[in-house]
Amino acid sequence: MRFAVYEPPQASHESVPVLYFLSGLTCTEENFMVKAGAQRFAAKYGLMLVVPDTSPRNTGILGEDDEWDFGTGAGFYVDAITQPWASHYQMYSYVVHELPTAIAENFPANLDRQGIFGHSMGGHGALICAMRNQEQYKSVSAFAPIAAPMRSPWGQKAFSRYLGEERETWRAYDASELIKQVGYHSPILIDQGTTDKFLAEQLLVEAFEQACQEVNQPLNLRYQEGYDHSYYFIASFIEDHIRHHAIALLQSSPVDSNYQL
Amino acid sequence: MRFAVYEPPQASHESVPVLYFLSGLTCTEENFMVKAGAQRFAAKYGLMLVVPDTSPRNTGILGEDDEWDFGTGAGFYVDAITQPWASHYQMYSYVVHELPTAIAENFPANLDRQGIFGHSMGGHGALICAMRNQEQYKSVSAFAPIAAPMRSPWGQKAFSRYLGEERETWRAYDASELIKQVGYHSPILIDQGTTDKFLAEQLLVEAFEQACQEVNQPLNLRYQEGYDHSYYFIASFIEDHIRHHAIALLQSSPVDSNYQL
Repeated sequence: MRFAVYEPPQASHESVPVLYFLSGLTCTEENFMVKAGAQRFAAKYGLMLVVPDTSPRNTGILGEDDEWDFGTGAGFYVDAITQPWASHYQMYSYVVHELPTAIAENFPANLDRQGIFGHSMGGHGALICAMRNQEQYKSVSAFAPIAAPMRSPWGQKAFSRYLGEERETWRAYDASELIKQVGYHSPILIDQGTTDKFLAEQLLVEAFEQACQEVNQPLNLRYQEGYDHSYYFIASFIEDHIRHHAIALLQSSPVDSNYQL
Repeated sequence: MRFAVYEPPQASHESVPVLYFLSGLTCTEENFMVKAGAQRFAAKYGLMLVVPDTSPRNTGILGEDDEWDFGTGAGFYVDAITQPWASHYQMYSYVVHELPTAIAENFPANLDRQGIFGHSMGGHGALICAMRNQEQYKSVSAFAPIAAPMRSPWGQKAFSRYLGEERETWRAYDASELIKQVGYHSPILIDQGTTDKFLAEQLLVEAFEQACQEVNQPLNLRYQEGYDHSYYFIASFIEDHIRHHAIALLQSSPVDSNYQL
């Protein structure tokens, strides 16, 4: 498994909070680091950025590279239970357990202060990881997440093949279901472009908004007029997201005075 | 010919200054727009960004795609005079004349306020275009430019094949020669990474610095410790460059009060 890390200047003399970014379909660990312009703000707030790849690669599973929205580049942040995918496609456990361990062993990371965000499939991943591990992740946000995957063609395709046809199993990986079951301990920030061509059929952010309302979950959902699904959209609002996480990750810190909030 | 344009919000109600970025070897009109994080600052100062491709493409010239540092993606911002290149490779005239005309005809651009900058081969291009057209370009800067191409292997290869073996002809396209002949009307900003692997053999920024000293040309040459030749380097200092141009392009403007300097 490959991942990208940005170490802020503050990491040269102390361990720093970690902010994970989960990417969308077809991405690798590179896209966000190259295109989002996030380092500038991670440096300002003293956050380490960690960006995993979106799936295992070269596993030898027959057909893994055949489709752009399933298999390679499309791990969907679940632990597969069906064969042949279960042998390698364990992205949920990888993101939540294996990756943080690797980070802690190799970088000056403070794992008491972790946040997570993502885009599209990665926005889905960030939401479910955060809700299912609320102690671990102090903050969560998303750009144009697949917010109700059980009701979206992308999600249905991925879940049925990674998890099987038993839809009860899917609920643990659906943000709009999870929020009603477990909520989240702090406000969730979501940005969504109004001219995103995937909004109506695949992302279904409205369903998540409705679910949050049902359980009085604080949600800061911002519809951004005229923005699409691209990294230009992410780059336009990355500062707000990193500030959202910085506020949560740096609060009550003994080193607060080193950071500009 | 393809080019990329970023229109700042200010362009919706008035014509705005234009800042051209010339890219380096192998780039297209896309790299800078995707990787540099420049739009944020172009928006702040109200500058239109215009980024041309680095050469003609699909001209049918035999061998145009054979080498990464000559032909396609490597126009070197000269007007070729040798065959077969002279038929299409007229990048100098394209950047200085044809492109601004196309911009003025299709976008709310104020051609009385143009600046130019670039990276590597494009830093070379920006310097020579500005020095040879001082009325047209009010400001110039560069990231890691090929600053003395007559003395660099990349420059010698390109010039000998686009311009022929008569080295006198080359001088009009060499920043370190031109600065001694014509100078430049205002300070030049250059950023150069100290761990750029092309610095010693190909870029020769020191030669340009020496030439500037000989003629008392104001030069703000900043060696940036530990930075390489990549777009991460550009993204790290893009704000300073855009501010450098904004100061020149917005001064004495009747609309000054609309901009934050």
